[in-house]
Amino acid sequence: MLKQFLVPEADQVMVTEEKARAGTQAVFEKMGLPADEAESCADVLLTSDLRGCESHGISNMLRAYIKSYGDGSYNPRPNVKTVRESAVSATWDGDRGLGLHIGPRAMELAMEKADQYGMGAVAAKNTAHFGMLAYYALQAIERDMIGIAMVSAGGNAMVPTFGSEPVFGTQPIAWGVPAGEMPPFVFDVATTQVAGNKLLLAKRIGSKIEPGWLAEPDGTPVMEPIDVPDWGAGYKMLPFGGTRENGGHKGYGFAAIADIMSGVLSGNGPGFIADRSYAFFVMAMKVDAFRDVAEFKADMDLLLKKLADNKPAPGHDRVMYAGLPEHEETAIRKRDGIPYHREVAEWFNSMSAELDLGVSFP
Amino acid sequence: MLKQFLVPEADQVMVTEEKARAGTQAVFEKMGLPADEAESCADVLLTSDLRGCESHGISNMLRAYIKSYGDGSYNPRPNVKTVRESAVSATWDGDRGLGLHIGPRAMELAMEKADQYGMGAVAAKNTAHFGMLAYYALQAIERDMIGIAMVSAGGNAMVPTFGSEPVFGTQPIAWGVPAGEMPPFVFDVATTQVAGNKLLLAKRIGSKIEPGWLAEPDGTPVMEPIDVPDWGAGYKMLPFGGTRENGGHKGYGFAAIADIMSGVLSGNGPGFIADRSYAFFVMAMKVDAFRDVAEFKADMDLLLKKLADNKPAPGHDRVMYAGLPEHEETAIRKRDGIPYHREVAEWFNSMSAELDLGVSFP
Repeated sequence: MLKQFLVPEADQVMVTEEKARAGTQAVFEKMGLPADEAESCADVLLTSDLRGCESHGISNMLRAYIKSYGDGSYNPRPNVKTVRESAVSATWDGDRGLGLHIGPRAMELAMEKADQYGMGAVAAKNTAHFGMLAYYALQAIERDMIGIAMVSAGGNAMVPTFGSEPVFGTQPIAWGVPAGEMPPFVFDVATTQVAGNKLLLAKRIGSKIEPGWLAEPDGTPVMEPIDVPDWGAGYKMLPFGGTRENGGHKGYGFAAIADIMSGVLSGNGPGFIADRSYAFFVMAMKVDAFRDVAEFKADMDLLLKKLADNKPAPGHDRVMYAGLPEHEETAIRKRDGIPYHREVAEWFNSMSAELDLGVSFP
Repeated sequence: MLKQFLVPEADQVMVTEEKARAGTQAVFEKMGLPADEAESCADVLLTSDLRGCESHGISNMLRAYIKSYGDGSYNPRPNVKTVRESAVSATWDGDRGLGLHIGPRAMELAMEKADQYGMGAVAAKNTAHFGMLAYYALQAIERDMIGIAMVSAGGNAMVPTFGSEPVFGTQPIAWGVPAGEMPPFVFDVATTQVAGNKLLLAKRIGSKIEPGWLAEPDGTPVMEPIDVPDWGAGYKMLPFGGTRENGGHKGYGFAAIADIMSGVLSGNGPGFIADRSYAFFVMAMKVDAFRDVAEFKADMDLLLKKLADNKPAPGHDRVMYAGLPEHEETAIRKRDGIPYHREVAEWFNSMSAELDLGVSFP
């Protein structure tokens, strides 16, 4: 993440993985999920916090989930239905279950099909927030498969290039690939310039928005640094790349792809009509169906080393690839704990007392 | 395309589709291809020129292909071998055949597998230039399938974000989706800020390079408009998005994905070691495996109309989606002919005389 999204050291409260995991699982159980499913949901959030992707961890998401379980928007005991199925595909109705509740099972099914036939995919409609997409990519990587995940997350945020009316949410895409000795390639991005949750983080921290990230209410790209505006002010998000000259039309195209592969293919409908109901798409491809796995991994290592050892441009001390910093951050946080913002720890403790969880931070 | 890539009207020579097609097919036959395969190759180039994607049509590519057939780099009668095969996948050795020579057959096989199982994919190593990737997406669209194509095109052009040493070529990605009444969604982009061939076009036309498109030899992004530099000057291409703040790291991630799915998965190796040997990946997904086709198309129309009818931002008269302008341009060019640059027509006529093709432009 860019440094403006990091929690300043003075505001950090360090919490061990075990405690954060126990607290999160307890919350999901209180929301009405069976213990094993609560454990699985907590694993998605904790994996996110361990990887340094706190925009999709406890800080922003857990309280949002509690609210949505509380008002009945999410179903803690979804009866997931198979709407259509083929040798390598399935389409699910998620019965208003949280995306990260049913997502890991969807990837399990995709992997079973991939194991048998070479590839497998599941599209799900009528679901909700999916958490950090990298999680699903990592599931596939553990089985020597390539993992893909996409989400249609409503249609209230992003304008198409040259447009003024929002059509897409942040419509994220993840793509993970196993490697040998090197940490795996795990790409996971919003197709907006910035994930919506990162705007919340920036607001909490008081950081500015970069030029080309947002558009005025009339669609004109904002080209100077500004404070994070209030949502009600009518600002729109630009696709990644920003302006047309900078490749924003390509970010826009990938946003459309995510919306189509999850929203349209699942039967949820495009994000702008589905609104509060999310859709997702997961896919697994067995490396062994195409090539010897050891040879594939050796070539992945060659590529990833070439990237990580690349001579940096002036002003930079290192070249990264997707998944490398998150892999390193995970090792640090497993050892030192997760640095939550003081305000998040305070919220957690008051919520924990209210729900009688018996867990407190730090 | 941006207007700086269009052929100025004063330099246009209008050539009918029929004549351009006949001339192109005749060239491939002279190169030693069987007539039906020469016809298929000509169709890839002509589809490109008709769609207004002249960067990948006759103007730049045909003379490059002639040179490579002439010096023995390309094999006009490749003996394509199946290296590995599963129910839904195949890996090919292209035997130095031109990518657009064996690509349409690869997509045919992917579609056969998709027709039977729901999805199908083919990865090919030891091949060459693949032409306009949209072509393969369009093949799938005609069969009510989602079509995907990616290419690993060497590793001499693009630096990773913050890096100074090239690792990737322009590593393009295409994704096509059928619709109902609306022209289909056909996304086809280089993962660099600009396709390499478009730099050639810009140089011919005398246009400037936009800020954030290239990097200095030391990796520093060039942030003011400059003339197209000579290749030998050591400038590098940036991933689309340009700088890190503008989402360049996301363009970089998609470049890596294209390199992995085609170069690494096929066994060609990552682009930077494969160098002059290209690799490609094509995939087809049958819509019907996931959802009723008519319902899917109705939702696609809803989405595409919402995009095309979007109120434009000030200074713009229209919002587009990928595939819409190309669809419209095809109708115009089928009627009025293809506007080649005078210099291209002159080259074609001299080459045609030399090879005794019996075709001249206009």
